[in-house]
Amino acid sequence: MHWTCILISFCWLCPTLVHAGKVLVFPVDGSHWVNMNVIIQELHLRGHQVSVVRSTDSWYIKESSPFYTSITLDMESGFDEDFLTAFIAELLDIQKGGMSVWKRFKLEMELAKKNSEVQKKQSKLIEGLFENKELIQSLKDAEYDLVLTDPATPTGAILAQYLKLPLVFNVRWTSQGEGHFSIAPSPLSYVPIVGSELSDKMSFFERLLNVLIFGFAEHQIAQYLLPHYENLIEKYFGPDTDYLSMFQADLWLMRVDFVFEFPRPTMPNVIYMGGFQCKPAKPLPQHLEDFVQSSGEHGVILMSLGTLIGELPPDLAEAITAAFAKLPQKVIWRYKGDRPGTLGNNTLLVDWMPQSDLLGHPKIKLFVAHGGTNGVQEAIYHGVPILGLPLVFDQHDNLLRIKERGAGKVIDVFTMNEDIFFQGIMEVLTDPSYGVNMQRLSRLHRDQPIKPLDNALFWIEFVMRHKGAAHLRTESYKLPWYSYHSIDVILFLAAVVLVILSTFALLIKCLCSMFLRTKHKRD
Amino acid sequence: MHWTCILISFCWLCPTLVHAGKVLVFPVDGSHWVNMNVIIQELHLRGHQVSVVRSTDSWYIKESSPFYTSITLDMESGFDEDFLTAFIAELLDIQKGGMSVWKRFKLEMELAKKNSEVQKKQSKLIEGLFENKELIQSLKDAEYDLVLTDPATPTGAILAQYLKLPLVFNVRWTSQGEGHFSIAPSPLSYVPIVGSELSDKMSFFERLLNVLIFGFAEHQIAQYLLPHYENLIEKYFGPDTDYLSMFQADLWLMRVDFVFEFPRPTMPNVIYMGGFQCKPAKPLPQHLEDFVQSSGEHGVILMSLGTLIGELPPDLAEAITAAFAKLPQKVIWRYKGDRPGTLGNNTLLVDWMPQSDLLGHPKIKLFVAHGGTNGVQEAIYHGVPILGLPLVFDQHDNLLRIKERGAGKVIDVFTMNEDIFFQGIMEVLTDPSYGVNMQRLSRLHRDQPIKPLDNALFWIEFVMRHKGAAHLRTESYKLPWYSYHSIDVILFLAAVVLVILSTFALLIKCLCSMFLRTKHKRD
Repeated sequence: MHWTCILISFCWLCPTLVHAGKVLVFPVDGSHWVNMNVIIQELHLRGHQVSVVRSTDSWYIKESSPFYTSITLDMESGFDEDFLTAFIAELLDIQKGGMSVWKRFKLEMELAKKNSEVQKKQSKLIEGLFENKELIQSLKDAEYDLVLTDPATPTGAILAQYLKLPLVFNVRWTSQGEGHFSIAPSPLSYVPIVGSELSDKMSFFERLLNVLIFGFAEHQIAQYLLPHYENLIEKYFGPDTDYLSMFQADLWLMRVDFVFEFPRPTMPNVIYMGGFQCKPAKPLPQHLEDFVQSSGEHGVILMSLGTLIGELPPDLAEAITAAFAKLPQKVIWRYKGDRPGTLGNNTLLVDWMPQSDLLGHPKIKLFVAHGGTNGVQEAIYHGVPILGLPLVFDQHDNLLRIKERGAGKVIDVFTMNEDIFFQGIMEVLTDPSYGVNMQRLSRLHRDQPIKPLDNALFWIEFVMRHKGAAHLRTESYKLPWYSYHSIDVILFLAAVVLVILSTFALLIKCLCSMFLRTKHKRD
Repeated sequence: MHWTCILISFCWLCPTLVHAGKVLVFPVDGSHWVNMNVIIQELHLRGHQVSVVRSTDSWYIKESSPFYTSITLDMESGFDEDFLTAFIAELLDIQKGGMSVWKRFKLEMELAKKNSEVQKKQSKLIEGLFENKELIQSLKDAEYDLVLTDPATPTGAILAQYLKLPLVFNVRWTSQGEGHFSIAPSPLSYVPIVGSELSDKMSFFERLLNVLIFGFAEHQIAQYLLPHYENLIEKYFGPDTDYLSMFQADLWLMRVDFVFEFPRPTMPNVIYMGGFQCKPAKPLPQHLEDFVQSSGEHGVILMSLGTLIGELPPDLAEAITAAFAKLPQKVIWRYKGDRPGTLGNNTLLVDWMPQSDLLGHPKIKLFVAHGGTNGVQEAIYHGVPILGLPLVFDQHDNLLRIKERGAGKVIDVFTMNEDIFFQGIMEVLTDPSYGVNMQRLSRLHRDQPIKPLDNALFWIEFVMRHKGAAHLRTESYKLPWYSYHSIDVILFLAAVVLVILSTFALLIKCLCSMFLRTKHKRD
């Protein structure tokens, strides 16, 4: 498989125009860092200098790297591996026996509270940074070209506004939800709210649900997010600055494309780079290649539930390996828990695997996945159908997009047993439509005039060259909500109509009474 | 000047994937054809077969061409050069002495009536085509890959829907107004209506005006456009098909970009190809080169009021040449009228000129233009500031965009005299900000990852390869307007709240009366 492209005759390197820039990166820890690191490496490769702000308690973000220099803050970042793994374990416990509305609500509350804690620590962190006069001065002196940040917390954006630097987002979620909702008109009639598990084709009651979830989400933000930042923003930016204005970015590099995401309104400064992290498969390590080749004509099934879920409750793990054991295929499962008793000879448990290289191997027939964005994008890139076992966060939504396109099947991991899992695997393996549809998605995804990563880098460098991209930013940010929605104009027009009608009614009344009086007199 | 670009390492020609396609083009005559022809020539160059539908009375569209084969309909197209030139002459007369609200209204009515006549003839033309069973069968048999059309009239789109072929628009205006308004959310608070002469920064009363003009435009469409097509669409597509559904295109190739247009919401299937027709300047014919070089350090002023305005009322032409005669610059004016008596030695009147090549000449200091889209895009591409004399159509709006960016000045041609014109020229020539701003626009426009024409062709070929681009089309088209705006959901929620409140009130009332009765009894 390779990128379809056209002969772009004007492609030459213009060395005088390639500006070796300085980029200040304020990343979000955890799986978000994996994405950011791809861009950082590419920036380094193109000769730019990258500085990364991290905390002493950083989890994924290493202090030393050949690709960047780090600025380590002696503060808590709020991103906490232990908490997250504990949360996932609790989640598996909460959801056992299937999901009810109550369990769902409890889960959302749990997540909101966790998010609130993270945001509180992030807000303290940025305040600490602002009060570190020496560090702030050194950041000013460094004359960065731009701040590159992930707006899952607003911290990086606030720093960019404070330093008055151009701002580029590497974004899937902002602290207020899915990236588009902060910037592009999002008619709730066909744009599903994140976490709603709704598609872009909604019945009346689904549209109603979408509106209600939107209201709930707005309430959650007001309750759990804004209080941590409002005082901070007032203190450093003055009383007239609101939270949303911090998000006036020059560019939004969105980690989706419309092969994956439902089509929806967008904005001129949104660049779609979905699948930017995907690369052609490299050869496998010999032991894996041997194992894969040993599968013969049956091929191989790959399973991974992401980095956060190293192990499962024993009965669930047993059910999975028992189902696998019945298959003629070979199976590679990234699993760190105890070896299940029902493990078949055909199944290889591994601590880590070169997931993308395996997905690109022609022997791979099926990907059993939790539905994290990276894994789903890699499956699309390599054209491997998915059996989805979503757990939390955006995983249900990600897999819904695959299911809607007929490129995968989703089963509920919390009510699943050996039989259900086995039937699920058999269905995706034997019904050719899953593979055909996923390969169609793969062809569409690869058929772009420019590779997503190259496009993202072009636009980051565009911001360096032109010191921002103000000409792509709409005026919408500057309007209060009632003006944005023309509510003031509508009320004014309604008042005018009312005045005209009242005047008219008054006139009629006066005329009538005059007429009656005259008549009365005459009588 | 040249295109800034990045080294796109994956750019190779994939001959197996380049599909020699068959494209059915249904163009709009007049200046729109000039644009369409650029794409047709490029399609031909890339090995695609192009068929163009034209009428026997076609005005710009020639029957024979090395780039396409034509399908000539023995019917009136409605596009009428004589009418348009007469209209422009009348316009110059109407507007003389400046524009008043009444003159403006009269002009709009005049235009609406002319448009209505064109639409009526276009509707007859498409009906005639549908009734020509032999021709329709031959179009079906030809197995075109797609229909490429300009939606300034809906005819080409209706033909595509009838033939069930993928549909690509080459668009600036649809029959209902500016292209975006048919497809993308357009908040009237910062998206000005075409013809409003408003920018994206509006005061309260400008926003009010924008809403009123929107209402007026909707009324005009209902009155002058829909009646010509409603019966036709019902006859050939059934009673449940509405006019707007004809516009469900796979792609909208928009003839603007956000260097020219105010930033606004857009859609995944909108491709911006503003300036696609622009090319580096070729050497001038010797006599022109000699004339240009003779200007020395003062440079040259270029003037053109477009192909429709060959001549002006004599007093206006005299004022213009008299002002030119005072300048040390040389002037080239594309003018077909009688030679004005005040014509200076420095001014060359020409019937035709290689406008783009002249604009790209380093001696050119200023472009005096009427503000047609092509001329404005060429001025941006070559970085030449504009003195605008807008007359009609989108010319005021086009020039407003240049003026807002500080890259040109606009004067009212109808109240203008020699002095005003001279002062206007001097201002743009002597204030360096005009040139600096236009060169900034030029740099921004040229700094794209892929040339606009290459991008447009990539996406046309994408539609050929994938038999459409359904994955980029939103669900919004399928919703009735009240569902699209969630009005049904809001009414339902309001009803629920009302029922709850009424029940509550009733309950209170019952309790009160029970309490009173008990009290009464006890007393």
